[in-house]
Amino acid sequence: MEKITARQVQDLLHDYQLDHDGHVTIESLGGKSARARFEVAKKHLRPGDTVSGPTLMALADVAMYAALLGEIGLVPLAVTTNLNINFLRKPAQKDVYAEAKLLKVGKRLAVGEVTLYSDGETEPVAHVTCTYSIPPPKHRQDR
Amino acid sequence: MEKITARQVQDLLHDYQLDHDGHVTIESLGGKSARARFEVAKKHLRPGDTVSGPTLMALADVAMYAALLGEIGLVPLAVTTNLNINFLRKPAQKDVYAEAKLLKVGKRLAVGEVTLYSDGETEPVAHVTCTYSIPPPKHRQDR
Amino acid sequence: MEKITARQVQDLLHDYQLDHDGHVTIESLGGKSARARFEVAKKHLRPGDTVSGPTLMALADVAMYAALLGEIGLVPLAVTTNLNINFLRKPAQKDVYAEAKLLKVGKRLAVGEVTLYSDGETEPVAHVTCTYSIPPPKHRQDR
Amino acid sequence: MEKITARQVQDLLHDYQLDHDGHVTIESLGGKSARARFEVAKKHLRPGDTVSGPTLMALADVAMYAALLGEIGLVPLAVTTNLNINFLRKPAQKDVYAEAKLLKVGKRLAVGEVTLYSDGETEPVAHVTCTYSIPPPKHRQDR
Repeated sequence: MEKITARQVQDLLHDYQLDHDGHVTIESLGGKSARARFEVAKKHLRPGDTVSGPTLMALADVAMYAALLGEIGLVPLAVTTNLNINFLRKPAQKDVYAEAKLLKVGKRLAVGEVTLYSDGETEPVAHVTCTYSIPPPKHRQDR
Repeated sequence: MEKITARQVQDLLHDYQLDHDGHVTIESLGGKSARARFEVAKKHLRPGDTVSGPTLMALADVAMYAALLGEIGLVPLAVTTNLNINFLRKPAQKDVYAEAKLLKVGKRLAVGEVTLYSDGETEPVAHVTCTYSIPPPKHRQDR
Repeated sequence: MEKITARQVQDLLHDYQLDHDGHVTIESLGGKSARARFEVAKKHLRPGDTVSGPTLMALADVAMYAALLGEIGLVPLAVTTNLNINFLRKPAQKDVYAEAKLLKVGKRLAVGEVTLYSDGETEPVAHVTCTYSIPPPKHRQDR
Repeated sequence: MEKITARQVQDLLHDYQLDHDGHVTIESLGGKSARARFEVAKKHLRPGDTVSGPTLMALADVAMYAALLGEIGLVPLAVTTNLNINFLRKPAQKDVYAEAKLLKVGKRLAVGEVTLYSDGETEPVAHVTCTYSIPPPKHRQDR
């Protein structure tokens, strides 16, 4: 398989409306990993000027999906089956970035973990594990 | 403690911008349970006209928060510490409702489960368990 | 498919050494549900005469597996892929029973929830959700 | 606080019967991390000569508990409130070791992740996140 680029994944996310109206950027991709950034706007905040939980979950999901696409190719049919998030610290009113790492890519399931950080911080704001179901080859549609 | 009503919780959610721009309605409350509805609009959909994962997670979180407020009073400082979601079926392009039930309300932690349904369907589209950290009494602010 | 009985599942668990040396009994089966009991002995206790966490996790896993076998037939190759447990209350030094309910049985994945109780108690000691991967039909081995 | 050693944690685990009859060894401790090993015996195996799920869960729990004790001191009252495990690969009939890392140590909750490996392997057999509730200082009993 040809190497997938961050640009290609970004384009697929955009086409499938998974880039949250352009707020999510895939910054890097490769080695079963991906790094994504969420450009936080007013609508993603909660009282206390913290980033909302659904925003963190959405970023984690997209970052892991990007890592998976980088590994198995541009298969838009993979679906999240499980997501477990631990909220660790109140995020600042800043962009959030996600470091996603695949722990397993099987024929039918992929499992990974994502650590989320407020921009410029070293202590994580949240940690996520998630599982994707990968469709059988015959159902896949290459772009 | 005086009985909390669905109306009071709805108002608190609105004040704290937790009602997703008016899309979430608390339909009923009581007996350690809550029922909430998400009025799905175009922006909550994904390709294939299905409701997005973050929308489901957000609804589950709010429904459980409502059930908790109904039990411990209008304590806006309770925070979600863990959320685990299993996506079970592709939701239809319909409103989604959530049945939240508290499994435990301790002094420091509350744990509950939420089952999510597409409007009019009997098989769930997702199942969630989540944990809330309850602030010590001295930090609470009654409204 | 012929109806599977609790007795048949019990026998399979015994053959596959999944009945924890005879400590787990499948009390009932059917309707995508199962009820299982763990006969707690000294070795399953922890200081404070409480039942150990691994014992609770093991019981939940077996109860859900039983519910699944009751639904898809005696397929010993189904494997647990995810288990999430919330510990709710300290179990008494008593037998523990599990009420398992399947939330979804797909072609490839089954998801369920299990509520665990100390014998004779009405408030749960733990709540579990778990996912099983179901092998493709050609890999199944009927007994 | 004086630095806690792996030896001290090992002794506490033994006293509290948390070392699984001597099968769990804390190999190293420090820097919010711990490494633990489970000496697998016949009773921990399942058909196909694989290590049982409850054994993996038990090892993860003890490894994280060790990492926590290394950080907050020898506080035997900390209790697991949530454990989420993803089973990734079938473990070989070998000892299993666990790398535990704390993601957060708060006043009331600690959260960490554990990666489990079959001895000598580089791909993980399971990944765990878990949460501990830390008792208020007045309830702590130093040894």
